[in-house]
Amino acid sequence: MEKLSTATCEACDISAKPATEQETKTLLSQLTGWEIINEAGIQMLSQTFTTKNYTKSMSFTNDVAKLAESINHHPQMVVEYGSVTVIWWSHKIKGLHKNDFIMAAKTSELFE
Amino acid sequence: MEKLSTATCEACDISAKPATEQETKTLLSQLTGWEIINEAGIQMLSQTFTTKNYTKSMSFTNDVAKLAESINHHPQMVVEYGSVTVIWWSHKIKGLHKNDFIMAAKTSELFE
Repeated sequence: MEKLSTATCEACDISAKPATEQETKTLLSQLTGWEIINEAGIQMLSQTFTTKNYTKSMSFTNDVAKLAESINHHPQMVVEYGSVTVIWWSHKIKGLHKNDFIMAAKTSELFE
Repeated sequence: MEKLSTATCEACDISAKPATEQETKTLLSQLTGWEIINEAGIQMLSQTFTTKNYTKSMSFTNDVAKLAESINHHPQMVVEYGSVTVIWWSHKIKGLHKNDFIMAAKTSELFE
């Protein structure tokens, strides 16, 4: 099986197909600590990473932002003193694409 | 009247008094664009700043984080592609202290 953290994101436009329920299940099983949340009918991948302090939170936030810019796919991030919550979804298709699972896996690797 | 953006935050410990309803009203009237939100019974000051892109969002987030570290008072920040929401409150007193209004004013100045 292809390792998600080393997979490449494909360009995702408005015609891209969201992950099916079965694909979502399979892809999620390859991730650690990520959960699927639903915000106003949009499925998203979310994980709260615990940090030691604000400096560590900001350092991780900047690392994820750099990754996001390099792929041109951007998460929502909630920065707090002792945590950073990273939320991935594909705005264009209003849901989850395989790209989001790839980005989640890369985010986890960055945190490690 | 003292200008909030140039006022100094006092040390705020668990015995500090939250802003009264009247103080809250007066202090809020000195800010532009900030609203009071209520999360699980805790009053907070919130503003969503619109940005041009993720780079601008991250640049502003880093500016606010630097300010926060310098005063040792830290907001929650929600970073998105075209916006940053900054939320100030005093964790120790589970509500709003004058410090939060000062930090909100300083945040607005940073954005300008």
